Amino acid sequence: MSTNQVIAYLAEHKDRMIAELFDYLRIPSVSSQIHHNDDMRQAASWLANRMIEAGLEHVEVMETGGHPVVYGDWLHAEGKPTAIIYGHYDVQPAEPFELWTTPPFEPEIRDNKIYARGATDDKAQVYIHIKTVEAYLRTHGKLPINVKFCIEGEEEISSVHLPEFLSTHHEQLKADLMVISDGPIHDFDQPSICVGLRGLACLEIEVHGAKSDLHSGMFGGGVANPLHVLSHIIASFHDEDGHIAIEGFYEGVHEMSEAIRENNAKLSPDPNDVAKTLQVDVLYGERGYNFYEQTTARPTIEINGFAGGYFGENIKSIVPNHAIAKISCRLVDEQDPEHILNLINKHINKLNTTGVRVEVRKLLGGKPFVVSPDHPYIQKAAKAYEIGFGKKPVFTRSGGSIPIVQTFVEQFNVPVVMMDFGMPGENMHAPDEHFHLVNWECGVNTLVQFWTEMDN
Amino acid sequence: MSTNQVIAYLAEHKDRMIAELFDYLRIPSVSSQIHHNDDMRQAASWLANRMIEAGLEHVEVMETGGHPVVYGDWLHAEGKPTAIIYGHYDVQPAEPFELWTTPPFEPEIRDNKIYARGATDDKAQVYIHIKTVEAYLRTHGKLPINVKFCIEGEEEISSVHLPEFLSTHHEQLKADLMVISDGPIHDFDQPSICVGLRGLACLEIEVHGAKSDLHSGMFGGGVANPLHVLSHIIASFHDEDGHIAIEGFYEGVHEMSEAIRENNAKLSPDPNDVAKTLQVDVLYGERGYNFYEQTTARPTIEINGFAGGYFGENIKSIVPNHAIAKISCRLVDEQDPEHILNLINKHINKLNTTGVRVEVRKLLGGKPFVVSPDHPYIQKAAKAYEIGFGKKPVFTRSGGSIPIVQTFVEQFNVPVVMMDFGMPGENMHAPDEHFHLVNWECGVNTLVQFWTEMDN
Repeated sequence: MSTNQVIAYLAEHKDRMIAELFDYLRIPSVSSQIHHNDDMRQAASWLANRMIEAGLEHVEVMETGGHPVVYGDWLHAEGKPTAIIYGHYDVQPAEPFELWTTPPFEPEIRDNKIYARGATDDKAQVYIHIKTVEAYLRTHGKLPINVKFCIEGEEEISSVHLPEFLSTHHEQLKADLMVISDGPIHDFDQPSICVGLRGLACLEIEVHGAKSDLHSGMFGGGVANPLHVLSHIIASFHDEDGHIAIEGFYEGVHEMSEAIRENNAKLSPDPNDVAKTLQVDVLYGERGYNFYEQTTARPTIEINGFAGGYFGENIKSIVPNHAIAKISCRLVDEQDPEHILNLINKHINKLNTTGVRVEVRKLLGGKPFVVSPDHPYIQKAAKAYEIGFGKKPVFTRSGGSIPIVQTFVEQFNVPVVMMDFGMPGENMHAPDEHFHLVNWECGVNTLVQFWTEMDN
Repeated sequence: MSTNQVIAYLAEHKDRMIAELFDYLRIPSVSSQIHHNDDMRQAASWLANRMIEAGLEHVEVMETGGHPVVYGDWLHAEGKPTAIIYGHYDVQPAEPFELWTTPPFEPEIRDNKIYARGATDDKAQVYIHIKTVEAYLRTHGKLPINVKFCIEGEEEISSVHLPEFLSTHHEQLKADLMVISDGPIHDFDQPSICVGLRGLACLEIEVHGAKSDLHSGMFGGGVANPLHVLSHIIASFHDEDGHIAIEGFYEGVHEMSEAIRENNAKLSPDPNDVAKTLQVDVLYGERGYNFYEQTTARPTIEINGFAGGYFGENIKSIVPNHAIAKISCRLVDEQDPEHILNLINKHINKLNTTGVRVEVRKLLGGKPFVVSPDHPYIQKAAKAYEIGFGKKPVFTRSGGSIPIVQTFVEQFNVPVVMMDFGMPGENMHAPDEHFHLVNWECGVNTLVQFWTEMDN
């Protein structure tokens, strides 16, 4: 199939497609606000109609117990791989409205960027996929690969019902790869493919002392203080170099090759710039790794909260009877959340906690996601980016966790291609969210190339 | 002067004296509750009238800016020492009323104990002193020593105005020793003289990180976490044996002689009993010292509160930008609060706090109080207790801090004789407060003996 025709079609119809996207952006599909429930239904049905118009089949607004999933497929590329394209039609709340230059649900183009809530997250990015289907089917009557669209309405509220939906519709949804376009590329002049997300293992530690707070004059020095014990536990998690001192913690963390480290050196921002932005004197992390590696390729154990005793005005001279800490670990590579939580438990059991009772409670966890840059699908995506964006993409890892990616991996055992079409700093989740129109063109071109590559 | 006559007078008039005490206890002199302000005035004036009747001179209700001080003296024992007798006429609030067996301001004798708010804290104990003056003056027309009464109305609200009052009335109040009767003896069949109170040095440590809480996915591992740093600081305060690891902290702490340690061994409660009462498996404190020593004769550094980040339901994956801890040290012997706070500051400055800003703020402090059991006045008091209570007293130290004692020491540079006439477990500050009438007799007899001893 000739890509030229497809690309010509997309260029020719661009204005009409952007006008459609404006209609989509006008629907305030805020999943977290009940008064927008009708808008959610409207957005789902609007999207389903555009899918039908594009030529997708079996288009359906499917119930989930919450906001519905919009499904559609085209499965006539015999012998070719099937991609499940994941995205979402719900958006973040737009409050505070007064901080928007123009109203969030009245899209406007300024400086070649579309300003609207949901512009980049995730309406334009999903629409690129739908319009590429349309372009192929109008110009060739067929697609180079099989596609299944799974566009959910609850991404901004933790995909509450999606895992169950994936499991109850397993046959219908199974595919050879997952494609997701829901984030920014690495930099304005540097496209990227994200090949790693950190996993999560969360827990809370509660330390119980005496039956009640005690007078620190009468009892201070003679009974264990839960705040001392919890501080001691937390201080024991790291050594002086910022390495995690929990036995076995780094099992399953890959050694990085020289090539990868060189690549990381290029990807890491100037630490002075980061420090300046964060308003700290200097950054601090695990010795021997740069900021990019510390925040994406290395695991962490982070105390998210700590509380116990009195912390109001002045002082209250007590030995408090209770302390609690909230902790989340970011995991990488082969690290397993359950195993990590067990290691932390073992570590704490070896410490001196005389005179108190220590309770460790596991909270949520999710495995890290990692795909090799050498995976054939990733290589095809890289080639597509090189053509679509005019520059070889870099392979990046993200420090965050997108649990739904790991859910797809676990449910369908497929590689995930994270084809981001956003730009950095597009105010996702913030006022004046926008989408760079230059990425509309780069995006559709990249996607056309990708499908062509997949056909080879 | 014959003590027999004085003691006979006190025995003969006991019922009348207790009836007077009942009148005193009926006045709800709650210093912390504004609606009792008239009662406070009434209690002060009632007490002043009883002082006049007892034969004290220069009796005056003196303004302080808050609740007044009741003053009175008798200064005709030429060449003899002058004792300033400190006490208070204010009482704790009586709430919750429903937990009292009989109403708090309707005194009643049950099982040879007077039940009423203020019975032991401090109305009966002060009244023993006033009635002893009366007994001496009625039987001999004079006292063996000079006395000045300074009975304040703000002891239960931290003696707000007393330090300034002492300083502006320095000439009028100066004396050779201070006597205070405002606590319990060591045990029911074991009188005691308290020869030490711990001092206090309080501070708060605030650790500042980035300009705001950060996403632990995007920044976790690459920036210092104030909760880690503060935990590390706190964990560094003690070594594995529970000793304080701050350089110089133990300067000025006296080595305990074998004799003292033997005495302490007798005074220390069974640790299993204490653990059971506190509902902990086992006690924990500085290795090498028993519970009594740990809580009275050894200094401490105690974390009273610790807070930072998120500590609600579940988890919030942030690197918090702020943490705070409230800390109080109990000091002994020659330890100086200012010096201790400086040592803690120095200690923290030596730690690795890269990437955060640590702020140490000094809060209140007070020097420890300690008087040698060998001091002649303490020895005289011991002899008096042996006769008054029929048993040699033990010398105890209290783990708490009574700032006003140290204030007297600093203002007048005098030894303090803590002549407690209460019993353990008399529900000071709690419902069903009471005073054992057996201690009325033991108390007046002890005091008569003490003054006689002071005359020698």
